[in-house]
Amino acid sequence: MENAIAAQMRHLARESRNASRVLARLRPELKNQALIAMADGFLARTEELVAANGLDLEAARAKGLSDAMVDRLVLNPKRIAAMAEGVRQVASLPDPVGSISDMTTRPNGIQVGRMRVPIGVIGIIYESRPNVTADAASLCLKSGNACILRGGSEAIHSNGAIARVMVEAASQAGIPKAAIQVVPTTDRQAVVALLHLDTLIDLIIPRGGKSLIETVVRESRIQVIKHYDGICHVYVDRSADQGQALKILVNSKAQRTGVCNAAESLLVHRDIAPEFLPKAAEALAGAGVEMRASPEALPLLTTGRVVPATEEDFRTEFLALTMAVGVVGSTGEAIAWINDHGSQHTDTIVTQEHSSAMRFLREVDSACCHVNCSTRFSDGGEYGLGCEIGISTDKLHARGPMGLVELTSQKWIVFGDGQVRG
Amino acid sequence: MENAIAAQMRHLARESRNASRVLARLRPELKNQALIAMADGFLARTEELVAANGLDLEAARAKGLSDAMVDRLVLNPKRIAAMAEGVRQVASLPDPVGSISDMTTRPNGIQVGRMRVPIGVIGIIYESRPNVTADAASLCLKSGNACILRGGSEAIHSNGAIARVMVEAASQAGIPKAAIQVVPTTDRQAVVALLHLDTLIDLIIPRGGKSLIETVVRESRIQVIKHYDGICHVYVDRSADQGQALKILVNSKAQRTGVCNAAESLLVHRDIAPEFLPKAAEALAGAGVEMRASPEALPLLTTGRVVPATEEDFRTEFLALTMAVGVVGSTGEAIAWINDHGSQHTDTIVTQEHSSAMRFLREVDSACCHVNCSTRFSDGGEYGLGCEIGISTDKLHARGPMGLVELTSQKWIVFGDGQVRG
Repeated sequence: MENAIAAQMRHLARESRNASRVLARLRPELKNQALIAMADGFLARTEELVAANGLDLEAARAKGLSDAMVDRLVLNPKRIAAMAEGVRQVASLPDPVGSISDMTTRPNGIQVGRMRVPIGVIGIIYESRPNVTADAASLCLKSGNACILRGGSEAIHSNGAIARVMVEAASQAGIPKAAIQVVPTTDRQAVVALLHLDTLIDLIIPRGGKSLIETVVRESRIQVIKHYDGICHVYVDRSADQGQALKILVNSKAQRTGVCNAAESLLVHRDIAPEFLPKAAEALAGAGVEMRASPEALPLLTTGRVVPATEEDFRTEFLALTMAVGVVGSTGEAIAWINDHGSQHTDTIVTQEHSSAMRFLREVDSACCHVNCSTRFSDGGEYGLGCEIGISTDKLHARGPMGLVELTSQKWIVFGDGQVRG
Repeated sequence: MENAIAAQMRHLARESRNASRVLARLRPELKNQALIAMADGFLARTEELVAANGLDLEAARAKGLSDAMVDRLVLNPKRIAAMAEGVRQVASLPDPVGSISDMTTRPNGIQVGRMRVPIGVIGIIYESRPNVTADAASLCLKSGNACILRGGSEAIHSNGAIARVMVEAASQAGIPKAAIQVVPTTDRQAVVALLHLDTLIDLIIPRGGKSLIETVVRESRIQVIKHYDGICHVYVDRSADQGQALKILVNSKAQRTGVCNAAESLLVHRDIAPEFLPKAAEALAGAGVEMRASPEALPLLTTGRVVPATEEDFRTEFLALTMAVGVVGSTGEAIAWINDHGSQHTDTIVTQEHSSAMRFLREVDSACCHVNCSTRFSDGGEYGLGCEIGISTDKLHARGPMGLVELTSQKWIVFGDGQVRG
């Protein structure tokens, strides 16, 4: 027998499934109209959103959450305006649904090709920042998917208020209310129940800390697209333009530290280590970066705060002004090191040798492989997707930044005129 | 603490991971050379394969397996030759690895695009027919993936012998032995242990009965691509060319019954039911098909064996000369019925109305949506993929027949000349 929460989640997911059938056939202009109405709604109802957010902030402070955590939770008029602007941008992107590609005619005359269609029902399980509610719901709506949103309990009032504004706007445009649903309980059993509904939900996207994602992967019978860590590398090859390498290194490490595409490890080719590492130490120290050095790198890092690295340092996402530094004997060794120590997120090579660049692109087993530019470019906006719902370090369906196209699927379509199989 | 079998599986999967790094950088000609050597090996070592198969057949008969089951298990010289031919065909297909697409230049000058690469390590869990061992291993090798094969215990000697021939041929071409591994135990714990190794195995493809697939989905922490059933529909719209519809109907249902893309249900538009259903009954009866009819269809099916249908009949994969028959009031009703009762595999509409055809393609939530041709065409060979490793009714990564391209993934590649993020 199913318990009450499981039954409630099944009911909710079935409503999403029904809504997804309607969403799949909506015209782009209707979806865009609804999105613009949502953005207008956020601005018009700023006070209501701030008030709901106040309840979450009060509870957060009462619970003794850190200032950083509380800050992530805040919805103020400026953030609400930014959220509205984000939704407006989604409205302005091209609609991926319905495009037909790869049509070929087979010898018997049938025409076989693919049509891009929504995935169906997408469950998004996330923590903290309430603006994820607006981002995720708008991207799902635009791509014709129903979404089930399960934010953190600390943001439950904010998320509910954001969704309320969105659902009302959608509803006025004639879109079913169940197109955007927020799980109405903070009971953790609800998440587990959702993750078992593999006939009603098509995809789970978790966004949050490692333990959240691990729980989701362990429990889910539905396909999950995720990333755990961003342990990104900068590899400076022997033929690198060293001025370029220093710029790329500092930008990859220090332009912004708390993000998954910031670099955590520097590898330098042995042939240039004696020349390059002292300059790298100066540049990193200038940006306030502490270095954790392998035995070979240690004596060459002659400026700044340098400490010996542990093996663990080379497998750590510091998300801080800290960088592990090592020396390798070849591009092949760098590739093997990255594949062993990295997190299949983003890695960059700085080189002037064509064969090294191409080998790095082919053989580094990461979602994003860069040549002669910063790791910080692995981002939906920078890649030209216009937006992103998350980053995948998985290999199936979507790798790297996921935009609207990655929220759709391709079915096979076949046109015949009476053909049968012989 | 990990138990002995889990430790053994972890070791085996790590060997596969290492082999996958080598496979990912092999030239197409080397892979093809290995595949041809495998095909030659099958022919040269037919006796050895037949002898190994004899052990499985003996055990199967001793266990009292049905004749049909025993027949599926048999490897004779003819089947071995067919297996060799299949591997030779895989060698002749284009290599999907390394192709670069969608390169665009961003405003800052970085060039962003995608490169097709192997997925990595693929686990294949299957039952019965030993030729799956050769098919799966050759497709994985060609697409640059290492594979871990877990066949049914009833075919363990046959599968081991097939893999031995393949591994020896691969090894002589310089490919690591661990590129193709067979799980050396029939202990079911081994499967569970494999399904938890989400850092070492990238994809699981189960092929077999529903209970096998359900177990895999429940236990796996690795992404799974699968199909459960093929409950395929033929919908005859009011504007159908009825002669064409009869041909498509009989072919979809009766050309071959034991396959997942055979039709199981017929839906007919109410406007033409009185005219079409008597002809359909005659055609189906002529092909030996028993009809299970809805109350509205029942009196119109005036020829052959016709019984009243239960609701369950419309959700059943008969895999036999049996068909459920119903009447609907519109294309929209047919679509809703199919989305509710079908298995998201293959469905076909017979119609002369353009808007009905296009609506069916867009809104039927199945992997393969056909217009005016048999459901039986949803097959890798018929679609022009050259081969298939299975069929997916999932929506992510691959839908419908999966060929070599679906055994690869696309990573992002970026070429810069010193760009950093501002």
